[in-house]
Amino acid sequence: MTFALPDPKRGFASDNQASVHPEILAAMAAVNEGHQPAYGEDAVTARLREVVRGHFGAAAEVFPVFNGTGANVVSLQAMSRPWSAVVCPESAHINTDECGAAEKIAGLKLVTVPAPDGKLTPELVERYATGFGNIQRRQPSAVSITQSTELGTVYTPQEVAAVAAAAHERGLGVHMDGARIANAAAALGVPMRAFTTDAGVDVLSFGGTKNGLLLGEAVVVLNPGAVEGLAFLRKSSMQLASKMRYVSAQLVALLDGDLWLRNAAHANAMARRLADAAGALPGVRITQDVQANTVFAIVPKDAAERLRKRFAFYTWDERTGEVRWVCSFDTTEEDVDAFAAALAEELAA
Amino acid sequence: MTFALPDPKRGFASDNQASVHPEILAAMAAVNEGHQPAYGEDAVTARLREVVRGHFGAAAEVFPVFNGTGANVVSLQAMSRPWSAVVCPESAHINTDECGAAEKIAGLKLVTVPAPDGKLTPELVERYATGFGNIQRRQPSAVSITQSTELGTVYTPQEVAAVAAAAHERGLGVHMDGARIANAAAALGVPMRAFTTDAGVDVLSFGGTKNGLLLGEAVVVLNPGAVEGLAFLRKSSMQLASKMRYVSAQLVALLDGDLWLRNAAHANAMARRLADAAGALPGVRITQDVQANTVFAIVPKDAAERLRKRFAFYTWDERTGEVRWVCSFDTTEEDVDAFAAALAEELAA
Amino acid sequence: MTFALPDPKRGFASDNQASVHPEILAAMAAVNEGHQPAYGEDAVTARLREVVRGHFGAAAEVFPVFNGTGANVVSLQAMSRPWSAVVCPESAHINTDECGAAEKIAGLKLVTVPAPDGKLTPELVERYATGFGNIQRRQPSAVSITQSTELGTVYTPQEVAAVAAAAHERGLGVHMDGARIANAAAALGVPMRAFTTDAGVDVLSFGGTKNGLLLGEAVVVLNPGAVEGLAFLRKSSMQLASKMRYVSAQLVALLDGDLWLRNAAHANAMARRLADAAGALPGVRITQDVQANTVFAIVPKDAAERLRKRFAFYTWDERTGEVRWVCSFDTTEEDVDAFAAALAEELAA
Amino acid sequence: MTFALPDPKRGFASDNQASVHPEILAAMAAVNEGHQPAYGEDAVTARLREVVRGHFGAAAEVFPVFNGTGANVVSLQAMSRPWSAVVCPESAHINTDECGAAEKIAGLKLVTVPAPDGKLTPELVERYATGFGNIQRRQPSAVSITQSTELGTVYTPQEVAAVAAAAHERGLGVHMDGARIANAAAALGVPMRAFTTDAGVDVLSFGGTKNGLLLGEAVVVLNPGAVEGLAFLRKSSMQLASKMRYVSAQLVALLDGDLWLRNAAHANAMARRLADAAGALPGVRITQDVQANTVFAIVPKDAAERLRKRFAFYTWDERTGEVRWVCSFDTTEEDVDAFAAALAEELAA
Repeated sequence: MTFALPDPKRGFASDNQASVHPEILAAMAAVNEGHQPAYGEDAVTARLREVVRGHFGAAAEVFPVFNGTGANVVSLQAMSRPWSAVVCPESAHINTDECGAAEKIAGLKLVTVPAPDGKLTPELVERYATGFGNIQRRQPSAVSITQSTELGTVYTPQEVAAVAAAAHERGLGVHMDGARIANAAAALGVPMRAFTTDAGVDVLSFGGTKNGLLLGEAVVVLNPGAVEGLAFLRKSSMQLASKMRYVSAQLVALLDGDLWLRNAAHANAMARRLADAAGALPGVRITQDVQANTVFAIVPKDAAERLRKRFAFYTWDERTGEVRWVCSFDTTEEDVDAFAAALAEELAA
Repeated sequence: MTFALPDPKRGFASDNQASVHPEILAAMAAVNEGHQPAYGEDAVTARLREVVRGHFGAAAEVFPVFNGTGANVVSLQAMSRPWSAVVCPESAHINTDECGAAEKIAGLKLVTVPAPDGKLTPELVERYATGFGNIQRRQPSAVSITQSTELGTVYTPQEVAAVAAAAHERGLGVHMDGARIANAAAALGVPMRAFTTDAGVDVLSFGGTKNGLLLGEAVVVLNPGAVEGLAFLRKSSMQLASKMRYVSAQLVALLDGDLWLRNAAHANAMARRLADAAGALPGVRITQDVQANTVFAIVPKDAAERLRKRFAFYTWDERTGEVRWVCSFDTTEEDVDAFAAALAEELAA
Repeated sequence: MTFALPDPKRGFASDNQASVHPEILAAMAAVNEGHQPAYGEDAVTARLREVVRGHFGAAAEVFPVFNGTGANVVSLQAMSRPWSAVVCPESAHINTDECGAAEKIAGLKLVTVPAPDGKLTPELVERYATGFGNIQRRQPSAVSITQSTELGTVYTPQEVAAVAAAAHERGLGVHMDGARIANAAAALGVPMRAFTTDAGVDVLSFGGTKNGLLLGEAVVVLNPGAVEGLAFLRKSSMQLASKMRYVSAQLVALLDGDLWLRNAAHANAMARRLADAAGALPGVRITQDVQANTVFAIVPKDAAERLRKRFAFYTWDERTGEVRWVCSFDTTEEDVDAFAAALAEELAA
Repeated sequence: MTFALPDPKRGFASDNQASVHPEILAAMAAVNEGHQPAYGEDAVTARLREVVRGHFGAAAEVFPVFNGTGANVVSLQAMSRPWSAVVCPESAHINTDECGAAEKIAGLKLVTVPAPDGKLTPELVERYATGFGNIQRRQPSAVSITQSTELGTVYTPQEVAAVAAAAHERGLGVHMDGARIANAAAALGVPMRAFTTDAGVDVLSFGGTKNGLLLGEAVVVLNPGAVEGLAFLRKSSMQLASKMRYVSAQLVALLDGDLWLRNAAHANAMARRLADAAGALPGVRITQDVQANTVFAIVPKDAAERLRKRFAFYTWDERTGEVRWVCSFDTTEEDVDAFAAALAEELAA
């Protein structure tokens, strides 16, 4: 089959518009032999379990799912009861971009915390995790933090540990939305374990799709005592793949070696390069610390409009004119430089 | 990456234990170039829309999803309201094998109909779709039929049309779970359209995974007036792939040509061969018409137990000793003959 | 205020069409003094707790709710997890007459058991409570039995104990829908405790409304280890009365003394009288044992239609012409005799 | 039956700790005669329909329910779809005090708006009702405003009309939580219709319990085109009373005449008296306009703690020491004066 794909435009709209890393495609082909038990009883998923334990510790359990929303909602419901509330930043993906799946699928109530840099703190946990024992109120069951955040910032291991301690003190579990976890690890220069298992995170939504996979995320349970019913929740939440070997093969290819880190470090470097180039232009203000693979900037609206006709990217805040530029594993230096040059042109136009 | 896959055992447990057809892997590689808009705005999904219309008519709309449960639940909720009931055979996959996703995700109530061959009839619809206007009762919104059925039987186009007429007469929509729709078309020797669009089916769960795909199903809306909110339901039900081009590419590869039919016809032929061979053995009783790719048989329990050590398959009914053997696109004549020979040995043991 | 109520027709449609016992109205007036804490922290509800323990044992905990559906769904969710299934007879009120509240509110899946007399048995529990550990299947969490049943039959204490033992053996809890529990106790001539706490029932939906209350039911937890989160589930399921003293006062008036038994015994006696009179008429067949306050009979359809113009009652099964006649605490001998005479007339017409 | 009620303490904790107005008890006794059809088919509920139309216009439809949470959630779900979001102030009862029933029962997502006086404005609607057509976002279906608000403030008819116009312009319906609607009408000196039907409100949660009823609220549909499936939603949400005549009788007694207004006007006057007395004390700051029956004040924490031992009331904000005092129809001038005197004593202590 050949597709007449239109001229392959490149852009900065999202790391999920990127392609699939060739090693990932190769991994799927490598397991395409004979029959395998379905639903995760296969040999490839068994191998994935070992690989994940190598990264996250001997207690870690991995449950591959289809997408990030699935990972988040299944994780949070497994940490909760029908009368629970989850504390998260207002900017959390579960709050802003999952079409209310947490409410629809799990009946959860989100307690959303204003957090300009996208990060919770122990003080915010103390202030928003309240109402314990009050039957008029949902009972806080968990906090959910995102690493790297939706605003391109990164928690240090110490910051995660402090939030986790504040949560655990109050009986709450700690969930991390790690849709871009590899970008955080690359930014911090530490193993993923340093700011997850070792910092007190109980359950992780591990993200692969934004880091070069075709389709594959996973719930990684770091503290098995923090969840219940995960296998049943995954299935009844429609997140259990039948031919799971092909999802697991992608995750193994990403994690059994350094592909996860190479891809993420490159994307981060491209974001740094872009922020440096754009931030130097008059009229552009970089609005968040560029710690991972995402750049937020305020750009004059007319320039942004013209630029968008040349490269894809999203407006983040219609009111302020803030835009978001995301780099991915397949963003090249040429892409960045061409984009920065185009931005300069449009600013001058 | 190389996996030390265990000796690739083959069996008859399910068509979702089969491998991926090489043309499907090739299609994913063929679209792996550059960036593409996410969430279905890409050029590959646009091509899929055309291909689906070629099969199912100009009004057909296609919404790729991750798995069959997702296709079924999203379809049925889009045809329903929070006070709706769905009439289906007791043997329906949504009733028996989806861990109650319809109840959990959509709050639906299933009205389950005893149907020994897995098929609804107009008389059964009349008998079980009741309670209209009674506020103590869920209001019937749809019937859900499976083609080919979970029991390996096939509705003729006339049978589907009769059920659909009975449903429509009462204001119910018609959903078809087509996890094995290609097997039905191959069995009947007609286009899929003959027993879907042309027979009055409103919404189809189109199945690809059991017919050689890696992972890919789709809601195909044949009657757009029968659904509401499908795009939002797909997203909030966690069934929207970000890098959708890779799901769509598989579906295009299956449907744009005759791969769907080749795969299914072969699986059906293998089931026929197996039924003929096994049915001729003393002590074996074939319990359902073998019309598609699945064989049901009652085998002495001790023989079945011994046979299971050599080939994977499931017991369907512990009480009667009925077993299920499923053939797939990659089942070979040698597989079938070896299995039949082993069965003969175990019966004689 | 005076209402021009239409001629107060009496009938046999349901015990929830009856009036309120004068002692119940008096009890509400008796507590109508001053302020009381809301939501059950009041002195009347405290008294109810004692009264309930007198009936059901020292471990019993009572949670008043608004209606029977509320009692059932809150009870069952407190005994379940989001991946649970509840085994009940097909005729169970939760299955047939609650507009799918169990599915909508709690996301439960009901496994419905054909049971011609409305009663589960250990054998039926064994047969239908299956799929343990199978992730494709909801996990059975509880059986729900109704006493007296929707078909007017009554479990003996031994029968309840046998069902409960079969359930507990498999790790299932035992729920009793006691919308008409007093009728069962009156029929059996034993305390309610004999077939609840002492027979292994874990949670009871205690019914008051059908036995002379204005509005008042209660979840009675007999085995506190069998439930979790009941207070939160009651509130979030919209079943927590603010001015609870008035609901509790009704329940105290019913249970602190023998009003519950007087009312129920009278209703049962009226049903017996009606069954005897009607059953003696040619053309009438009593179809269920008349053990409580409900009579089921098959009557020629034309006679039933004419009779219905004179007295309210429901058709139970349109196909067979089976009708249901329910007696209540305020049904008089005159009501019964007039009804039987009218039936005789219509049969002869 | 006699209850040894403890010394009937009076307080300012909530209007739902008050007693029942004697005319309400009398109304229930007045309809306690003979049988009546259940579930709202009775003559009393028919009379209620007329009375409600007299207040709210000829198109109004009334659906009695058990409590305010029930009224709110049933209303909002009837105005929404499974992919909807509801815009409301952060202080809305549905957000703060219903244990997440909207999320649990209806799967709704609440978009909560910071609003220091508890009131939405057209500007806030414009700012928070966004994301139309974006599949990552819940689609706004309705705004929910509270009259009088949870903060004791009152919308003018013009203010409601402006919010409603902003909502309707964007295709959103307008829901009013009228748990204290009578207090608002009394404060404004206008008929309830002036700020509901005539101001563009589509659906009203009419509150009776806080205004002297035993137990009784109602969904009042002012714009029948704005809802779907209300009767089924009420039933499946467990808010349908079987012996409804007794709920309807209370509502008729409240509304057919001026009891609703007398009760509310008195409660408002008591709040005014309390605010005047307390506000004059040094160290007390009244924090919200006292427009209805609720007073918010900041009081030194130690004085508040001592005062609470003598009179019941709630702390509203632990951080600031803000307290809430609610007056009800049975609050007397003596109650207020005694409370104010006690407050003065504790401030001086």
